[in-house]
Amino acid sequence: MSAVQSQDNLASEASVRDLRRVPIHPDFWYPLAWSKEVKRGKAHGVHFAGEPIVLARTESGRVFALEDRCAHRQVPLHAGVVEGEGIRCGYHGWTYDCSGQCVDIPYLGRERLPNGVRAYPCREAHGMIFVFPGDATLAEQTPFPEMPSVTDKAYKTRRFGRPVKCHYSFMHENLMDMNHQFLHRRQMGQMRARSLGRRRGENWIEVDYTFMREAGKQPAGEALVFGSSKRSEDQSDSSVMTIRTGYPYQTLQIRSSEDSLVMDLWIVYVPLDAQQRTNRTFGMLSIRKPKVSLLLDAAWPLLVWFTERIFKEDRAIVELEQAAHDNQGADWNHEVFPVINELRDVLRNCGARTVIPIRAVEDLA
Amino acid sequence: MSAVQSQDNLASEASVRDLRRVPIHPDFWYPLAWSKEVKRGKAHGVHFAGEPIVLARTESGRVFALEDRCAHRQVPLHAGVVEGEGIRCGYHGWTYDCSGQCVDIPYLGRERLPNGVRAYPCREAHGMIFVFPGDATLAEQTPFPEMPSVTDKAYKTRRFGRPVKCHYSFMHENLMDMNHQFLHRRQMGQMRARSLGRRRGENWIEVDYTFMREAGKQPAGEALVFGSSKRSEDQSDSSVMTIRTGYPYQTLQIRSSEDSLVMDLWIVYVPLDAQQRTNRTFGMLSIRKPKVSLLLDAAWPLLVWFTERIFKEDRAIVELEQAAHDNQGADWNHEVFPVINELRDVLRNCGARTVIPIRAVEDLA
Amino acid sequence: MSAVQSQDNLASEASVRDLRRVPIHPDFWYPLAWSKEVKRGKAHGVHFAGEPIVLARTESGRVFALEDRCAHRQVPLHAGVVEGEGIRCGYHGWTYDCSGQCVDIPYLGRERLPNGVRAYPCREAHGMIFVFPGDATLAEQTPFPEMPSVTDKAYKTRRFGRPVKCHYSFMHENLMDMNHQFLHRRQMGQMRARSLGRRRGENWIEVDYTFMREAGKQPAGEALVFGSSKRSEDQSDSSVMTIRTGYPYQTLQIRSSEDSLVMDLWIVYVPLDAQQRTNRTFGMLSIRKPKVSLLLDAAWPLLVWFTERIFKEDRAIVELEQAAHDNQGADWNHEVFPVINELRDVLRNCGARTVIPIRAVEDLA
Repeated sequence: MSAVQSQDNLASEASVRDLRRVPIHPDFWYPLAWSKEVKRGKAHGVHFAGEPIVLARTESGRVFALEDRCAHRQVPLHAGVVEGEGIRCGYHGWTYDCSGQCVDIPYLGRERLPNGVRAYPCREAHGMIFVFPGDATLAEQTPFPEMPSVTDKAYKTRRFGRPVKCHYSFMHENLMDMNHQFLHRRQMGQMRARSLGRRRGENWIEVDYTFMREAGKQPAGEALVFGSSKRSEDQSDSSVMTIRTGYPYQTLQIRSSEDSLVMDLWIVYVPLDAQQRTNRTFGMLSIRKPKVSLLLDAAWPLLVWFTERIFKEDRAIVELEQAAHDNQGADWNHEVFPVINELRDVLRNCGARTVIPIRAVEDLA
Repeated sequence: MSAVQSQDNLASEASVRDLRRVPIHPDFWYPLAWSKEVKRGKAHGVHFAGEPIVLARTESGRVFALEDRCAHRQVPLHAGVVEGEGIRCGYHGWTYDCSGQCVDIPYLGRERLPNGVRAYPCREAHGMIFVFPGDATLAEQTPFPEMPSVTDKAYKTRRFGRPVKCHYSFMHENLMDMNHQFLHRRQMGQMRARSLGRRRGENWIEVDYTFMREAGKQPAGEALVFGSSKRSEDQSDSSVMTIRTGYPYQTLQIRSSEDSLVMDLWIVYVPLDAQQRTNRTFGMLSIRKPKVSLLLDAAWPLLVWFTERIFKEDRAIVELEQAAHDNQGADWNHEVFPVINELRDVLRNCGARTVIPIRAVEDLA
Repeated sequence: MSAVQSQDNLASEASVRDLRRVPIHPDFWYPLAWSKEVKRGKAHGVHFAGEPIVLARTESGRVFALEDRCAHRQVPLHAGVVEGEGIRCGYHGWTYDCSGQCVDIPYLGRERLPNGVRAYPCREAHGMIFVFPGDATLAEQTPFPEMPSVTDKAYKTRRFGRPVKCHYSFMHENLMDMNHQFLHRRQMGQMRARSLGRRRGENWIEVDYTFMREAGKQPAGEALVFGSSKRSEDQSDSSVMTIRTGYPYQTLQIRSSEDSLVMDLWIVYVPLDAQQRTNRTFGMLSIRKPKVSLLLDAAWPLLVWFTERIFKEDRAIVELEQAAHDNQGADWNHEVFPVINELRDVLRNCGARTVIPIRAVEDLA
């Protein structure tokens, strides 16, 4: 795609719907909690795009997911009590099994029990609790996220993430546009990204980059994450970074000049509120262990510190983008990088067909 | 009423107005402050359903109630100065007497004084300041709340209450549905309530309960409040609890098997804000003194602690109910207990005929 | 104007627009920051009536003002880096010169640079950064505020001000109506203002006052600000205070009986948010030095303390006025002082022709 086409895209955007009002599509598997957050015999309340969902782990260790409201008085079930393989509401004691069926009202005969609450398909994997918030009949046939590096002993994985106050699309665009290295100049020195090319399918897009250091020295934390740079004659690093949005997930992989996968990031941004102005990030950062594996363990705290600093800068800037969008009440972006305009198309086309109702601009001023 | 009828009620509710949008009826006497909050020679600002009201106690000890805004620049009169039997605004010094008439503007001739502000009928009784916020011509003929146990020396009374973030109707339903004992399982052990029957008039409804302990021991605090349980053969306590909503007030009385009134609670929930999503509770809990009256005095701190714990649990759960209603934008309750459905009818029929304007659901998400 | 006419004004106000919804007119020079707030080589974000504006001081010391958003992703430029005589966005490094033109995108050829962002006329004077937020073609011909006492060595000037949560009109009315001395009774004792007369033009109005002490002694702080009162036979001070609104600025001057200017206040109230419910006050209070100039220096801390106390009381009361207006959703004021009704006309006629969109009253309840 030429720059001219990119400009055309931009012009036509005026007539298409605002990406920041496109809800994420619910017919996918989304992690809603880390496994360790849902303790045995306890309930844990989470949200997906404004829907309250309770995750409960029974005494047998199994996790199930229900609509987080009692059918009776609408209070959250997560304030109740996990009993056997079900959950009892903490107010009047209505009880539901793991399929959401109401199985006991202490003061009412069993023949008169009302319908219960909605249950969600739920699976635990890779240290996360995944839920399928959309059409449950599609859950089985929908691909479950694969993370080969997480289970491969050649890699060490760091789990990270926290709530970020922006629409999920800002997160995808932030990671995929490596021209934003200027944002991290204090952490990484001045790096220049060069886009090598991109590939695109119906529900995915990916782009390759190489990097060249313009000024400063490579920091130790970066060497850990991205590998020590082995520069070619023209001062550019010969590693290749590939960033891919495979809706709704995103990956970032770095391959060395020997085509070895040295870093493998899997990440997803789960909308929390109904307006999808907040997301919770679940990231799995896998680093290939060096020959002396202990070195990576020793350096791990430095890596944690380094990635937290980078993530903090990204979080701050995407929250400023969201604030600007809220204030302007529309998408005023003037995007000149073709891959980002195509990424937006992917996100727009893959999203739900409804529109997020947002407040009028004057209410937010 | 059979369960079938109850279901019919539920079906017909779809076509009636949402109880949580029914304003409380203003043509009653409502306490707006404890007497001790309104000090001699001082003014005190309160609210009734969004209306700002100033309570002022003159040097002679009398309390009067005016609209809490100066006719001039609308600033609250409670920021002014009580002078003689009137109040002077703290900004430009406009002065009002206890009937709300403007009696002085320091820089304007008396012949040009404008109209003043609205005055409310006001009475002090039982340690509370009562105001009649509705049609003042109805104040005299409207029954003033009676609290015989409060003035009876055979009883000791505890005053309590604080703001709760919910519509007043949730408070009535909470107290009247004794099947919510499960909520207080940590304080009271596992009790099962049994409804003995109910009676209903045009603007009141009452229901009788007995209780049976299912598990655990009677806590000391409970014994103080409800009396030591004298169990009959079938393990049920022979005391009878009667809960009554006599619009807009509520009472809870416990009579022992000898038909002696051992506990007498009078309580009312006064809306604070215009949307009536917050109420201030004024409760008067009277306990019949034992033969050795000192025993009750000695145990009083325990009783205070116990009732505070119970009240805290109730407050938390009704606030969750309100939050769910705000989020759902409508009444999704699925009530199966006939007495509560009838209580709702009483509250709906006795309330004001207007509708509380609430924000659209998306604004609250 | 007679009192009858004043009443007519009041009646006709019902049909004119609500002054509290009249936006300040943008075609004037407004201070948006103190000079010391904009450090060399740094950027500083401010607001004018909801418009984000970045003030940047280059290494050469010059200050320029741009729209505070990058044309690319809308993030604030004040989070970026001042470089040479321009500013670079902190996200992807887009760079603007002091005229707002985009002069560099690190990853895009210069021939493809997009348009930049809006620049505002900007001048530094009297220790403040002034911006012309309206039609830039009018900036040159629009009179720049003069402050002769600030540069006159016969005077010592105090700079003060802070954000106040109200529409700018409440500030003008507060200062011009000296009958509000009752508000400051604790600071100044009981003073009675007497209006001597007023003059009015198309975009200005001024009024003269003398003062008479009714009770109490003149405080030391007041003597410093207003001069020691030299009372005439009838106990009135012979100094004359003139308060003038010369749109959009306001001045308060005190002349002694010998017609010497002893105090000279210049003040302006700059709206911060789009709804213009908050303003930032910039005040320049000049006091004529006594013959022994050291006396004024020695007493300066007392003067600061005294004026801060007065300003705090004023701030509290105008914020209460704004809160009442928000709650009532309209202007319920019953103004009886002719000069204030005429001041309102001036503010209404000089303001912008648009209407501030405010939330419905129920949203604010």
